[in-house]
Amino acid sequence: MDFGFSERTVQLQERLLSFMDEHVYPAEAVHDEQMAAAGDPQYHPPVMEELKAEARSRGLWNLFLPGDEWGAGLTNLEYATLAEISGRSPELAPEAMNCSAPDTGNMEILAEFGTPEQQDRWLRPLLDGEIRSCFGMTEPDVASSDATNIRGSIVRDGDEYVVNGRKWWSSGAASPRCKVAIFMGVTDPDADPWHRQSMILVPMDAPGVTVEKDLPVYGYTHRGGHGVVRFEDVRVPASSLLGEEGSGFAIAQARLGPGRIHHCMRVIGMAERAFDLMCERVLDRRAWGKTIADQGVVQDWIAESRIRIEQARLLVLKAAWLMDTVGARGARIEISAIKVAAPRAATWVIDRAVQAWGGAGVTDGTPLAHLWVTARMLQLADGPDEVHKMAVARRELRRFRPGWRSA
Amino acid sequence: MDFGFSERTVQLQERLLSFMDEHVYPAEAVHDEQMAAAGDPQYHPPVMEELKAEARSRGLWNLFLPGDEWGAGLTNLEYATLAEISGRSPELAPEAMNCSAPDTGNMEILAEFGTPEQQDRWLRPLLDGEIRSCFGMTEPDVASSDATNIRGSIVRDGDEYVVNGRKWWSSGAASPRCKVAIFMGVTDPDADPWHRQSMILVPMDAPGVTVEKDLPVYGYTHRGGHGVVRFEDVRVPASSLLGEEGSGFAIAQARLGPGRIHHCMRVIGMAERAFDLMCERVLDRRAWGKTIADQGVVQDWIAESRIRIEQARLLVLKAAWLMDTVGARGARIEISAIKVAAPRAATWVIDRAVQAWGGAGVTDGTPLAHLWVTARMLQLADGPDEVHKMAVARRELRRFRPGWRSA
Amino acid sequence: MDFGFSERTVQLQERLLSFMDEHVYPAEAVHDEQMAAAGDPQYHPPVMEELKAEARSRGLWNLFLPGDEWGAGLTNLEYATLAEISGRSPELAPEAMNCSAPDTGNMEILAEFGTPEQQDRWLRPLLDGEIRSCFGMTEPDVASSDATNIRGSIVRDGDEYVVNGRKWWSSGAASPRCKVAIFMGVTDPDADPWHRQSMILVPMDAPGVTVEKDLPVYGYTHRGGHGVVRFEDVRVPASSLLGEEGSGFAIAQARLGPGRIHHCMRVIGMAERAFDLMCERVLDRRAWGKTIADQGVVQDWIAESRIRIEQARLLVLKAAWLMDTVGARGARIEISAIKVAAPRAATWVIDRAVQAWGGAGVTDGTPLAHLWVTARMLQLADGPDEVHKMAVARRELRRFRPGWRSA
Amino acid sequence: MDFGFSERTVQLQERLLSFMDEHVYPAEAVHDEQMAAAGDPQYHPPVMEELKAEARSRGLWNLFLPGDEWGAGLTNLEYATLAEISGRSPELAPEAMNCSAPDTGNMEILAEFGTPEQQDRWLRPLLDGEIRSCFGMTEPDVASSDATNIRGSIVRDGDEYVVNGRKWWSSGAASPRCKVAIFMGVTDPDADPWHRQSMILVPMDAPGVTVEKDLPVYGYTHRGGHGVVRFEDVRVPASSLLGEEGSGFAIAQARLGPGRIHHCMRVIGMAERAFDLMCERVLDRRAWGKTIADQGVVQDWIAESRIRIEQARLLVLKAAWLMDTVGARGARIEISAIKVAAPRAATWVIDRAVQAWGGAGVTDGTPLAHLWVTARMLQLADGPDEVHKMAVARRELRRFRPGWRSA
Repeated sequence: MDFGFSERTVQLQERLLSFMDEHVYPAEAVHDEQMAAAGDPQYHPPVMEELKAEARSRGLWNLFLPGDEWGAGLTNLEYATLAEISGRSPELAPEAMNCSAPDTGNMEILAEFGTPEQQDRWLRPLLDGEIRSCFGMTEPDVASSDATNIRGSIVRDGDEYVVNGRKWWSSGAASPRCKVAIFMGVTDPDADPWHRQSMILVPMDAPGVTVEKDLPVYGYTHRGGHGVVRFEDVRVPASSLLGEEGSGFAIAQARLGPGRIHHCMRVIGMAERAFDLMCERVLDRRAWGKTIADQGVVQDWIAESRIRIEQARLLVLKAAWLMDTVGARGARIEISAIKVAAPRAATWVIDRAVQAWGGAGVTDGTPLAHLWVTARMLQLADGPDEVHKMAVARRELRRFRPGWRSA
Repeated sequence: MDFGFSERTVQLQERLLSFMDEHVYPAEAVHDEQMAAAGDPQYHPPVMEELKAEARSRGLWNLFLPGDEWGAGLTNLEYATLAEISGRSPELAPEAMNCSAPDTGNMEILAEFGTPEQQDRWLRPLLDGEIRSCFGMTEPDVASSDATNIRGSIVRDGDEYVVNGRKWWSSGAASPRCKVAIFMGVTDPDADPWHRQSMILVPMDAPGVTVEKDLPVYGYTHRGGHGVVRFEDVRVPASSLLGEEGSGFAIAQARLGPGRIHHCMRVIGMAERAFDLMCERVLDRRAWGKTIADQGVVQDWIAESRIRIEQARLLVLKAAWLMDTVGARGARIEISAIKVAAPRAATWVIDRAVQAWGGAGVTDGTPLAHLWVTARMLQLADGPDEVHKMAVARRELRRFRPGWRSA
Repeated sequence: MDFGFSERTVQLQERLLSFMDEHVYPAEAVHDEQMAAAGDPQYHPPVMEELKAEARSRGLWNLFLPGDEWGAGLTNLEYATLAEISGRSPELAPEAMNCSAPDTGNMEILAEFGTPEQQDRWLRPLLDGEIRSCFGMTEPDVASSDATNIRGSIVRDGDEYVVNGRKWWSSGAASPRCKVAIFMGVTDPDADPWHRQSMILVPMDAPGVTVEKDLPVYGYTHRGGHGVVRFEDVRVPASSLLGEEGSGFAIAQARLGPGRIHHCMRVIGMAERAFDLMCERVLDRRAWGKTIADQGVVQDWIAESRIRIEQARLLVLKAAWLMDTVGARGARIEISAIKVAAPRAATWVIDRAVQAWGGAGVTDGTPLAHLWVTARMLQLADGPDEVHKMAVARRELRRFRPGWRSA
Repeated sequence: MDFGFSERTVQLQERLLSFMDEHVYPAEAVHDEQMAAAGDPQYHPPVMEELKAEARSRGLWNLFLPGDEWGAGLTNLEYATLAEISGRSPELAPEAMNCSAPDTGNMEILAEFGTPEQQDRWLRPLLDGEIRSCFGMTEPDVASSDATNIRGSIVRDGDEYVVNGRKWWSSGAASPRCKVAIFMGVTDPDADPWHRQSMILVPMDAPGVTVEKDLPVYGYTHRGGHGVVRFEDVRVPASSLLGEEGSGFAIAQARLGPGRIHHCMRVIGMAERAFDLMCERVLDRRAWGKTIADQGVVQDWIAESRIRIEQARLLVLKAAWLMDTVGARGARIEISAIKVAAPRAATWVIDRAVQAWGGAGVTDGTPLAHLWVTARMLQLADGPDEVHKMAVARRELRRFRPGWRSA
């Protein structure tokens, strides 16, 4: 057991920290000004491309992809600590490094399940940061945390598939830079629940694809946004299917593990950003003849924040290590547990930072309100906490049932 | 001891509930459409004036004012339960009834401390709903929860006062319908801290008054908004002073009590609205072969919500009763306590409703995300929770100090 | 709506407060010494009889019984505030006033359902404080929170009933002063679940009744204790049945409401006692150059304690008022809610007082550790919190089901 | 970074787990019977010596001591996981392995600071499990969490020191097997606060040493107990001083780190024991037609328990690793943080297990109530949570102060 980082990890961390200090943090205000000037939430501001070029030149590009063929070959554990750092500026750093959701997950499954043709058409430009992609799974009309509820359909018709459905929370869909959707839908309604569905690649400019609206999240809309996308009799060549018919659920599972770790580490980075902002504020602000940092309750927040962040981070890192050593199956409890633990720690810490900043915390004078919303969103995205806790409990209880054998 | 409502209260409650059902709830979508069509957060939509006319014709107008001279003559306790009901639609109902903050507080102090001339000029049109007003107390540069930190200045110069300062969170300031600000500032820096400040009436169109920006709250801007207002060498006649020089702090105190109760009751109304939405949702939504309402954890939320709302409401009602019977001084502990208890209960309940609604909870498909932000804001507005808890503790501890006598 | 107490209530409160100050608190140390000297947890110390005589002479006797025939004729609401005060010294004051559980509940059902003969034999000596009683409902082998699980049996055999079963948590059973048990068991296993059971009076000296052991609670055993009682072929005359066959469940329900309110008010008294002790301690103790009361976190505990106690108390009082005005059926949600809210507030407050007292808090230097255990026990006794919350949720959700009508 | 255990650790874990299964758990009932039969809380039951012999023969003896000279040479990290396992049966396993507090800490400082003579007289028999020891630091009359408050005195008089003071929470002092106390007291009241105190070895049979009483903890007294010890003009040879005059505070600091980790790991073992008991119970118990394990709220407890235990464990292990790699100074934040995090997780988990067991949880039918008390005690012992959080906050805030340099 060793809590130290490898030399390669430390070097990448330092490289990324420099990039954050020298480029990302200073770019935040520039980004906000360019967006405000454009007046269009789907505008792609020039500063973003500058950051991407800089990150790429520094070797901070596509670090999320585990394999050697397409990616940097980092382990989940190694990349996790970099994802955390990028989470300190979640609007800019992940995209600058070509490591934003949902593209990362989409690139992963294209790398693992895509045909050479699919990889040429979609994976390469995604890896180059030339286009973006979205993922169409959740549907507004059903409780999608039970994936068997999904109603979107993918029907074979000759050499084509006909895609129908209405998806929401398709992050990034509203951006003109989004060129492809991975759509999940039913191919065989009579199959058992876990083999009923498939995934298919749908170009966003295919006839029948409509981005109905961009969903605000607690008042925020941001670049790319979260789209409601209607697919109406969209026809794509049969070669657009990802993997085999009926493999949708399995691919979704494969996509989940690493994405979960990325999300959780980024949210810990958000918590650390909020922690720093809170500490700076309370040392600076005075009331009743002393700084706020001298108030016992505020010290309690700081200590609690450190304790909560530290515990959540260690749990996520352990989950990443398990992914690397025993695989997603062996890490199932941890993969569910971090989804609960990390956003919870983060929302708590960020909320205390908001409170410490007072009026400036809830408005746009700090990134805190937006960070909170992003972290809060994660308690729902990719399954609400309650579903993950049920999964943990079921698996834990299994050990205590008569006749149970470890396997 | 009697937990029943008086006949007059019950009649007013029923009248208001009918108004809510028949006019307010249906107007919510209309309001959102008119605002979206206008594309201007400061637009005053026609539906608002229709609601005001309807409320007035139904005798649901200016119910907040306790006295007989200007108001409906309801006690704090009687009005409290009406404020709660109006809080179920916080963007529309209070304004429809001419009972929105900050106008209510401003009208109260104009009624109590205003000269006949001040009342003619400002109180009458406010009572008629023809104009709106704002309150300039909090400043961005200091911890305003310690009111002695306030730096705005009001300097006598012949027959005029010269007003300087920068205020924020001046709710309503950005609306063109806002015609007057009550500004708090230092008149005598050498006086003891509690007599250093005064309040003065400043027309919003006076030279030197600038609304710098409208502060978003967790991404939301709404009609009137929360303004940052700069007062630069603004000259007003000496007759604009409210009360005497040095009475600013005392007037601010007088303004606090009833406003606190209104805020807290409205936030309980928001919690009840969220509670209803949660219950409706969980009975409607199915996953894993049963409704979400059959999930034990969801039932726990519902029970907890009921328990928390009920306790908070009773505490606020008791505070209102104390205000009516022993006055604000005798209700000091409760007036501080409700400021902590009510928004806490409400944010918890609303957040669980958000969770129950999933994706629809965090976006604009329900009023929940906005309700949460409004309730969360109250944990800061008018002093953060921590300041109110310190006040409760100090007062409780006093009883245990040697030589203490009840008084 | 009126939060003030009636004159009669205030007079009784003052009378009881004097009794507490002049007799009960001073008797606590005496009690502990007499018990320690006796070395027998079932010893009945002389100080107890002195307190009873004093209480009786002051008109503080049997105040719990609502009717005029047997009791003081106080409403539930009036008695509630007296129960709270007695809870400040829960080992002594309730017994001194002949208002301890489980005798109060037993006396209530004897008064309501007993035959004149049963009342003569058991109710009179109980009302006179000459004997005590126990209640045998919960069983160690089944989840008794689901009352249909109860397996004890009451079988008619000629002019007798034969009683069999094993009960636990029969409070008071181990005392030699306990002369009668009210036993709940199945009379007709084929009836519907709510008419399967009956209650019967069993003298503790009847052949076949054995007190197996006295259950410690977190290491504490106290006078009377919580017994495990075995009933083996115990024969009692048929006239011992309470009410009719099959009415056991209905009588248990009738017994519940007032007892719940007594328990909850006493636990609030415990919280107030702990609150006082906490305040006294923190003003007295110094560390790092200031009193502990100057520590912000400690002030937070004090404020939180006040806020939580006050809310819980109001909810219990409202439940009592509902019991008085609309009856137990109309108060069902509140009767469940207070069972969750009051012990929760109390355990929290007492635990913070323990923390404030440090080492003296967890040992016998203060009553705090024992108070905590008593309050914690209430989160299980008479149904765990979870069952009560399920009941609240079910009832709340009912309003939202299609076709629901208020009734 | 590697979350796997070394081969040596795994072997020791397996050896210890076998010992627990084969000897310790079966001995629990035997222990309780022998203690009950003896009727003396200071009785040393034969089963204890049998366990010690067995543990020693299996190489599970004195594993806590890090150095090679006296101990097993395990790192803090290696020993930590063994301490956890022993904590599953905290009354028996640590003592069986000669790894109980306060002896472990006393042996550590005797090994590090003792003279050969002191080591011969006290360390050897302690290492052999022949005698036990106690530690006298905390005093009833002052807030000892501020160590500068300590008033005990150690005054040089010729070749002797005269020791005076009254200590409490001297664990183990009441046992006749306790032969020596390490007493902390003031040698030079004029020195700076951190050099005022010294530690000295005092035989328990020295004239002037009196064990006044054994402190119950929430109703529990256990073997050895927590003594109140009076030292009245106790004369010991000058050679009894540990280290130099004025080094008391430094030795206390050195003693703290490893002991903190042992305590925290044992408390995690307690939580795991409670977790197992909870899972077994809820699968076994039925209500309303299903097992309690099928209740959503119970599943939530299980998942929450796993999440909280796992996070706390990782934090303690990291602290142990830091102790091993950068020393106690570099681990200061973590050493404070685990003192808050581990007992908090444990009390929560154990309390939920109590709730799941209902009546059997609060009485002696399970070890749960006693486990809870042991874990709760740790939130006070060795400094209350609040002091540790203040330490974390101070250290975290330091990084944000102007002119701060990492060192």
